[in-house]
Amino acid sequence: MPLEWSGLSPELLLTLDRGSGEGLRAQLERQIRDAIRAGRLQVGERLPSSRELACRMGLSRGLVQDCYAQLRSEGYLATRVGASTTVAARACPPVAPAPEAPPAPRLVADFRAGVPDLGSFPLADWLWALREAGRALPTAALDYGAARGAAELREVVAGYQRRVRAAAADAERTVICSGYAQGLDLALRALAARGIRTLAHEDPGAPAMTSAAAAQAGMAAVPVPVDEQGIDVRALAATGARAVLVTPAHQWPTGVVMAAERRRALIAWAQRRDAYVIEDDYDAEFRYDREPVGSLQGLAADRVLAVGTVSKSLAPALRLGWLLCPPQLVEPVVGFKELADRGSPTLDQLALARLIASGRYDRHLRRMRAVYAARRAALVEALAVHAPGVRLTGLAAGFHAVAHLGAGRDEEAVVAAARARQVGLYAMAANRAEPARADGPRLVLGFGNVGERAVTQGIAAVGDLLAG
Amino acid sequence: MPLEWSGLSPELLLTLDRGSGEGLRAQLERQIRDAIRAGRLQVGERLPSSRELACRMGLSRGLVQDCYAQLRSEGYLATRVGASTTVAARACPPVAPAPEAPPAPRLVADFRAGVPDLGSFPLADWLWALREAGRALPTAALDYGAARGAAELREVVAGYQRRVRAAAADAERTVICSGYAQGLDLALRALAARGIRTLAHEDPGAPAMTSAAAAQAGMAAVPVPVDEQGIDVRALAATGARAVLVTPAHQWPTGVVMAAERRRALIAWAQRRDAYVIEDDYDAEFRYDREPVGSLQGLAADRVLAVGTVSKSLAPALRLGWLLCPPQLVEPVVGFKELADRGSPTLDQLALARLIASGRYDRHLRRMRAVYAARRAALVEALAVHAPGVRLTGLAAGFHAVAHLGAGRDEEAVVAAARARQVGLYAMAANRAEPARADGPRLVLGFGNVGERAVTQGIAAVGDLLAG
Repeated sequence: MPLEWSGLSPELLLTLDRGSGEGLRAQLERQIRDAIRAGRLQVGERLPSSRELACRMGLSRGLVQDCYAQLRSEGYLATRVGASTTVAARACPPVAPAPEAPPAPRLVADFRAGVPDLGSFPLADWLWALREAGRALPTAALDYGAARGAAELREVVAGYQRRVRAAAADAERTVICSGYAQGLDLALRALAARGIRTLAHEDPGAPAMTSAAAAQAGMAAVPVPVDEQGIDVRALAATGARAVLVTPAHQWPTGVVMAAERRRALIAWAQRRDAYVIEDDYDAEFRYDREPVGSLQGLAADRVLAVGTVSKSLAPALRLGWLLCPPQLVEPVVGFKELADRGSPTLDQLALARLIASGRYDRHLRRMRAVYAARRAALVEALAVHAPGVRLTGLAAGFHAVAHLGAGRDEEAVVAAARARQVGLYAMAANRAEPARADGPRLVLGFGNVGERAVTQGIAAVGDLLAG
Repeated sequence: MPLEWSGLSPELLLTLDRGSGEGLRAQLERQIRDAIRAGRLQVGERLPSSRELACRMGLSRGLVQDCYAQLRSEGYLATRVGASTTVAARACPPVAPAPEAPPAPRLVADFRAGVPDLGSFPLADWLWALREAGRALPTAALDYGAARGAAELREVVAGYQRRVRAAAADAERTVICSGYAQGLDLALRALAARGIRTLAHEDPGAPAMTSAAAAQAGMAAVPVPVDEQGIDVRALAATGARAVLVTPAHQWPTGVVMAAERRRALIAWAQRRDAYVIEDDYDAEFRYDREPVGSLQGLAADRVLAVGTVSKSLAPALRLGWLLCPPQLVEPVVGFKELADRGSPTLDQLALARLIASGRYDRHLRRMRAVYAARRAALVEALAVHAPGVRLTGLAAGFHAVAHLGAGRDEEAVVAAARARQVGLYAMAANRAEPARADGPRLVLGFGNVGERAVTQGIAAVGDLLAG
């Protein structure tokens, strides 16, 4: 067996065999050449300095310099004066570019729902909050955090939910998660662990995502119709389900606010059936001209599992949310969070706590309420002018509304014709679990990420299509 | 039906009924008082300014000021000159403090494994990277990102893995996740979706966490013994499993580096059996005096699913990691990531990409290698002095080693006696799936988060216990 010697450069995996008979410089050259040919090193990637590589491999610096010089002369490497050595542009086999969809044509207005005004994200405030949280960070906070979330954020979120949503919230029953999708996933797993095997959900709603989430937790999903008061509780009771997912503050996608009587009936059903309500507190932050309505969770904290997120109030990219859990579900939810990802990122959590506690979060929401109210007014006015026959509903909260097309109209045909005029419209059909139930052709108009002028121009461009 | 009027304050849910007969000021006072009594508003929480509340509720400012003055005189509210109105300290019913475990006594040295040196986390670099990423952030990046992760980070991670781990990585097959726990969860779900129902894993290993993760994906977990060369591939084949989880770079917890021949046997098994290897590339960043060993994934990219994380190289609190997937598993893994949380936080991902691309990540790793090497040397030396008969193995990489106690010694008794001297030691027992297999009493000594002096003092304090 030959005597072996080898070393590891931090940026590049190389092995020298001092007993192989091949010279060390030849070995080094060959390995770097092979790494470049095989694509392990790609155009523009940095190599260690000759001093550093020599030190780590136990070679003389001159030997490494000679090796680099040789590879430069072969066109594999490039060195600019005073800069580091990198892989040269002409050295590499051409990498096939990833197949990409052709860029979508720029739209006059895109009424896609579910996206807040991204341009208004308070980036300076968020970076301030991250910096402040970082400055105050105890060393121990860099370890794995509690799966249930940072204590500071759980306190602040619970306080906020009590004040603003009349929720029965405390830090002990608040679990931090990574946005609504994970909140729903954790809630469903906790319910499935209690033997619940069927999830009822609103129709129209988000049938594809809801069914997929339910299936992942081992549950079947059953649609239940929504009318002008909210979910049909009698139809819900008839399904035999012991869990239901609802959006009481502003129903997705019809925009209905669940009526007080319907709320009471839903809670009574849950108590009678030993069932649970998952409350997606969707769009609760932005209300306009209706009476304030607290969260369902505040009415029956032992039956309602509320899921909230900053995706609409701040931005989806942050991936932060929370669950308010009935006492008996707290530990199961925390257990599933532990298995899922051992907790959400600590610095982000502490930054959100600072943002809320400092009042900057409230200030942002106040500003955004005015922004969305103006867009909503522009939408109402533009429709009154350009498509006066089209009824608009679901305007009490949030940033989407429903436009009712005349009987017999074809949603998809209107969407396609609008697209040809560079206006993004969206059919209700995608949100329906049972198309047969449809009560007339409708479009869902999101105005969260569309400026006032674009709202007006977009509706002006398609008014005749909507009016039919 | 009385005429109703109501309004919503952004920070507090209040409803006024103008037809109720009760005066508006009385209603406002009562509702705030009730909110404080019920704990919806807690000590120190801010109320809106009188001007703002008046504006939002459609009241005169004088009425709100009178209401606040009354509640101040009753002791519910407090206002400092020039500051906001808050809930007064004596107003609230005492909140029962959450039951907390008594603080653990401060240890001379805590040899808990699996934690890097938290005090060395490059916080300034991380905040720099967040700021830079934030500054360059396109507005569209605030929307939901791709579930597979930000393109910038996938490129940078793939490049890094090619260079440093000789991985067969490209951005297309790299999926960003929230640390190792989520990476394992996604990998197992993707394998379960291919009909694989049994996961073999190393013994000793992390049996509790591995079994729980497997169960969550609908898989059974089967332990397979580890010897001085790594996992016993013959025993693995005998289990009939078609998936195995291994830590080839530095086996947890024995510290064995998987031998080249064992690697080849493992890959051959996977190819023969149409099986998959999940490679936890644990501790690959920190190697000391052994030949560099590339990742298993680089040997058989279509059979190995590699999971990496920054929990050891930076800090667990960041919750960022990645999977390098065989081509046929990319889309299933991305689909499960989409369901799990719709992608990891974008700003954190872009910050990590900047940290690596700028060379600051490499610089940190180089610095930490020196730090850990010094602690490792201190451990070896302290044991040679204070417990010369105790054999130490598993020192080739990472920041934990295994101390072999004399035959017949009781691991738990040594741990308990050390704890009485304020030294945290950890028994191998917790890591064994089948205790009967144990080849002698051993302790796992982590030195990642223990300073050199504490290593020396800690071992000096328990040397006689170890020597027995």
